[in-house]
Amino acid sequence: MSTTPAQPVTRPGGRTARTRAAVRDATLAELAAHGHRGLTVEGVAERSGVHKTTVYRRWGGVDGLIVDALDLAADDDWQPADTGTFAGDCRALADAVRRSFADRTEGAASTAIVAAAFQSTRAADALRKFYADRHQRSEVVVDRAVARGELPAETDAAAIVRAVVAPLYHRLFVTREPIDERVTEHAAAAAVAAALAGVFAQT
Amino acid sequence: MSTTPAQPVTRPGGRTARTRAAVRDATLAELAAHGHRGLTVEGVAERSGVHKTTVYRRWGGVDGLIVDALDLAADDDWQPADTGTFAGDCRALADAVRRSFADRTEGAASTAIVAAAFQSTRAADALRKFYADRHQRSEVVVDRAVARGELPAETDAAAIVRAVVAPLYHRLFVTREPIDERVTEHAAAAAVAAALAGVFAQT
Repeated sequence: MSTTPAQPVTRPGGRTARTRAAVRDATLAELAAHGHRGLTVEGVAERSGVHKTTVYRRWGGVDGLIVDALDLAADDDWQPADTGTFAGDCRALADAVRRSFADRTEGAASTAIVAAAFQSTRAADALRKFYADRHQRSEVVVDRAVARGELPAETDAAAIVRAVVAPLYHRLFVTREPIDERVTEHAAAAAVAAALAGVFAQT
Repeated sequence: MSTTPAQPVTRPGGRTARTRAAVRDATLAELAAHGHRGLTVEGVAERSGVHKTTVYRRWGGVDGLIVDALDLAADDDWQPADTGTFAGDCRALADAVRRSFADRTEGAASTAIVAAAFQSTRAADALRKFYADRHQRSEVVVDRAVARGELPAETDAAAIVRAVVAPLYHRLFVTREPIDERVTEHAAAAAVAAALAGVFAQT
């Protein structure tokens, strides 16, 4: 389970759903292997076993393949880990991001999707939707902390879940510095401390 | 003055330095106008008035142009604002990033450079160095807070300055959400609260 775009998910469904999943898996594998610029309909067709003309007809092209891979993620059952404490949950959220990008294949595919969003408005829109969904699901971490009385009810959960993971993405894609467990721990602990200090309180 | 890659700086110097600055300014202007994929030696030559063969000979190609634009930034005199308080300084740091990207030309050029780093190892290395330098200069904000007794001496200044700006970059380039003054304020306030809570204390 992952907070990042490139985690293949097994889905039930008929032939259409299986084809869609196969094309999505092939898209992620091609992105991991060749990057955003190396993604081709031909490569996805060959890897998925779905005929090239079918891929063109149903997905249009590489942008459509990326968009559909992101859209499909909305159907998965990803939920943040429930560790029993707010600090533990935030740490688990940050750690999920760190581990996703440490995974060679998943990290490369997710990175390629983030890169694609710089070049394609459609990919950017799909990525925005993907993360909006992931972050909304992550807000349960804050909801549980509120229910336990760790945080006041009027807390900006959206800001907190973004604060937890932002330092990791900043290093990955802007400063291009390595991320390790210390960075992950700092990121989570800083968000927790800020939340407890009332920075994210809504009035 | 800016914390972002694309801020042209007037430099003294002889003919070589003026040529280099003209090529850098043209590179940033072309990046702002056409993006990373639209950057060409021809475009930079035409805009800068420097002959195409000179640009090829001295910069090699588009990667060399981006790298040199980032390298030149190391020579400027950028320093973070000194507002008199740790909270004010952090807010000013975050606000400088927000304003840089809100500026149409500077924001577009900086975004194109961040995009280039996904495609070019040389651009990624230069971007890493650029931000390492900017963040090192930003650490004076923490040094001043330590000198005023706002923070303990053994504080991880590098982590704090990154914590201040990370939420902005995360929204700009990953979640692709808008950034406004409230986001900026949250980012700075969260980093300050975490620092005061001892999250960045080094033992």
